[in-house]
Amino acid sequence: MTTTPILDTEPAALERLLSQAAAAAGPWGDTLPTARAKVLCAVAEALDTAGDDLVHLADSESHLGVGRLTGELARTTFQLRLLAREIGRGEMFHAVIDRADQAWPAGPRPDLRRVHRPLGPVVVFAASNFPFAFSTAGSDTASALAAGCPVLLKAHPGHLELTARTGELVSTALAGAGTPEGTFAVFYGDEAARAAVQDPRIAAGAFTGSWRSGRILFDLAVSRPTPIPFYAEMGSINPVFVTEGALAARREEILAGYVDSFTLSAGQFCTKPGLLVVPEAAGVGEDLAALLAGRPGAALLNDRIAQGHRSVRDQLAAHSAVDVLASGPAPDDGAVDGPPAPTLLTVPVSQLVRYADELLEECFGPTSMVVTYSSWIEVLDLARSLPGQLTATVHAEEADASVGELLRVLQDVAGRILWNGWPTGVSVTWAMHHGGPYPATTSPMYTSVGVSAIERFLRPVAFQSVPDALLPAALRDANPLGVPRTEGVTAADLGF
Amino acid sequence: MTTTPILDTEPAALERLLSQAAAAAGPWGDTLPTARAKVLCAVAEALDTAGDDLVHLADSESHLGVGRLTGELARTTFQLRLLAREIGRGEMFHAVIDRADQAWPAGPRPDLRRVHRPLGPVVVFAASNFPFAFSTAGSDTASALAAGCPVLLKAHPGHLELTARTGELVSTALAGAGTPEGTFAVFYGDEAARAAVQDPRIAAGAFTGSWRSGRILFDLAVSRPTPIPFYAEMGSINPVFVTEGALAARREEILAGYVDSFTLSAGQFCTKPGLLVVPEAAGVGEDLAALLAGRPGAALLNDRIAQGHRSVRDQLAAHSAVDVLASGPAPDDGAVDGPPAPTLLTVPVSQLVRYADELLEECFGPTSMVVTYSSWIEVLDLARSLPGQLTATVHAEEADASVGELLRVLQDVAGRILWNGWPTGVSVTWAMHHGGPYPATTSPMYTSVGVSAIERFLRPVAFQSVPDALLPAALRDANPLGVPRTEGVTAADLGF
Repeated sequence: MTTTPILDTEPAALERLLSQAAAAAGPWGDTLPTARAKVLCAVAEALDTAGDDLVHLADSESHLGVGRLTGELARTTFQLRLLAREIGRGEMFHAVIDRADQAWPAGPRPDLRRVHRPLGPVVVFAASNFPFAFSTAGSDTASALAAGCPVLLKAHPGHLELTARTGELVSTALAGAGTPEGTFAVFYGDEAARAAVQDPRIAAGAFTGSWRSGRILFDLAVSRPTPIPFYAEMGSINPVFVTEGALAARREEILAGYVDSFTLSAGQFCTKPGLLVVPEAAGVGEDLAALLAGRPGAALLNDRIAQGHRSVRDQLAAHSAVDVLASGPAPDDGAVDGPPAPTLLTVPVSQLVRYADELLEECFGPTSMVVTYSSWIEVLDLARSLPGQLTATVHAEEADASVGELLRVLQDVAGRILWNGWPTGVSVTWAMHHGGPYPATTSPMYTSVGVSAIERFLRPVAFQSVPDALLPAALRDANPLGVPRTEGVTAADLGF
Repeated sequence: MTTTPILDTEPAALERLLSQAAAAAGPWGDTLPTARAKVLCAVAEALDTAGDDLVHLADSESHLGVGRLTGELARTTFQLRLLAREIGRGEMFHAVIDRADQAWPAGPRPDLRRVHRPLGPVVVFAASNFPFAFSTAGSDTASALAAGCPVLLKAHPGHLELTARTGELVSTALAGAGTPEGTFAVFYGDEAARAAVQDPRIAAGAFTGSWRSGRILFDLAVSRPTPIPFYAEMGSINPVFVTEGALAARREEILAGYVDSFTLSAGQFCTKPGLLVVPEAAGVGEDLAALLAGRPGAALLNDRIAQGHRSVRDQLAAHSAVDVLASGPAPDDGAVDGPPAPTLLTVPVSQLVRYADELLEECFGPTSMVVTYSSWIEVLDLARSLPGQLTATVHAEEADASVGELLRVLQDVAGRILWNGWPTGVSVTWAMHHGGPYPATTSPMYTSVGVSAIERFLRPVAFQSVPDALLPAALRDANPLGVPRTEGVTAADLGF
């Protein structure tokens, strides 16, 4: 496939997109949620129909492989349909009605009704490592559109052709469904991205990527004359803690599972397990080396990511406290820029705690660190010294002493706690929380995966004594949208 | 009452408070919600018991009057009890359970359960204008404690003695209930406040006050190495729009209601109506002047607020587009620093839109602006050009043409929309939203009044395949806390 090169969006073109997005915010936000749901389903349908073409285009740009990309596209269209269902049902509007109550203890209560409304146009940054699920029509776009917010999608340079093609499909599906012009557009280039984040017409931003880029954009967003929410998911080290009991009971399964998980998609997941914390006495080194021997390297997403991986890996390996435990087969041609061999480093837990600032760094790619401990106290010390994480995993037996304390510490550190599983694989459901304390994200209260992702783009508005006919539909007495609502109780019910 | 002067908290003392708060975060966060509820009720009880003393102390420091302060204290203890009830019921934990589902369309779904947990220690800034309801044991403190977060309360210099006394009562009540040391403490001084907001042990901040101070603190909070949520409620102009129809039907009631509302507590409410947008042809000037004639000035909270009011009022009055419409009786002694006379300025709507940057400024105190219009188009222009507001009010008849369009525009501008009422008076309920787009607040998704205020201090954590006995109580199968929970549906239920 030959196409003309895709150029960065010029200021005049960006201005047009911003102005169209601002104009679309009212009509798209006022579109009935059930109608927005149909539009999201039409987008899913269009992507499914073009599936084979999209997957091959994605594979040519990302090296992620047809199998993984086929699954990712299926996840993406399921995600669109699930969010469509949810916004159609209306739970996300959190409609609440407090009827007037003369006896209310804090003074007579007027009729008060609250509903959540769309924030306005959102800039979404596509991710390098999920060309579908966190890119053009991925979780951020789907949840912003579901909420009723127009989306300006900043393409990731790692898959420009795919973004352009997917963007066309989305735009065509939206136009076919009668959506207001400006509801969705793709734009290109870092300069345009910085300008968009700072534009007064933009009401929020969503980003998945590196800590460095995420923090720069967050800083721009919060230092505007009018600060805006900026939801950056910036990755994680995803520690996995293994007790002696677990290793005794399931040694092979755990070690094989670890190698599978940290090498999946060449380690290019924000939930890749970056630390395996194991008993020193278990001597897992030889077993892991044997497992790695059968794992040749795979090409990374692009040269920048390959260079980043090499640089962080080599820096960690060169640290005085760190040894190289094992690595997979060297690239056939021995080229320094070939597919990197999966690599395991190792460090004693006390040294990791001591040099936490230097060693607790995400190494995006097929490298992970085996951390050995000889006392559980050290393990708890490590857990307490961890920066914010998307996930933390415990492999243990229920009867293991003091694993409860570890779980308790990890709740302060991570957004998702796993038991006897692996953090790669983020299900799209109601209870999923893909988020966590900084630096995992800039907004620990919100998730970028799952149904609740929609909440990032809604804000509450209360209506006091507004006549029924002038209320938003979700708040009218007859509840014409049939949304779930809660009612505040009265003074009589309170009993105080 | 003579007491030793209250000094600013020194760095060493602040360090001790921060370290105690950090130590209390675990035990207080793990305290059963029903037990936390009892502690909040014990605080309410202690304040009610000391009511008369507290009210007189507050009056001596704030000039707000015994009547208003008695009501405010009652509101404050009701607020503690209402938040106690809610945290005890557990709705705020938003417990969600998705049971494992092999047939889940995005790949086999593990057992996933999510619950909201306390963020950690919170710095709360007391407000000048609500010595009880937004100060020591006010809405921010009550909601943070209810959420399970320790509180460090920064005293407002406008009522130091009251803060010290209330703080002692709160601490004694907490200690009596067996609460961990460090769960609550008062500290003093701006330098200590800035240090606390930047301390890594602090997880969030809550503030009610001026835009200037709020923005400075917000900037500190978001530019930390680890940014934290900072909920600043920074005031508002609170426009009130009056249609010709409403004025024809209820002229006297509307004009009297306006004067009552903008002079209530000498105009020292963040919801004071700062603009009354009325038909020019109605000629309301004389009526308003007559109403003001019977309103002598009242002392403001403190000299700084009096100076701020005078300065903004005089600057607005000196603007070429603005006239002084009327003012109340001059102070008896004619002293420039006496109680300011309630003052009404006036400006044509087209001029207000033209000079919006200079004229749309909150004037905290007993001054408001009467804005005259001759066409409804101009009114909509003004509504669209407003910065973010806590409230926007419409006085109209249901049959008034195009009032629906005004209401729609105002939803993009304000956190609360009122119909034929007055924005002063913020009820503490479930549906209340006391918040709004910047610069009304720094966090448009959150409210600082009402039951939902608790949500500012909680973040979600998901648990994947964690054994029942190791789950937080709210997520265990048997639901020992009896909290409301929702369950995700299965693939079979979805039907796609």
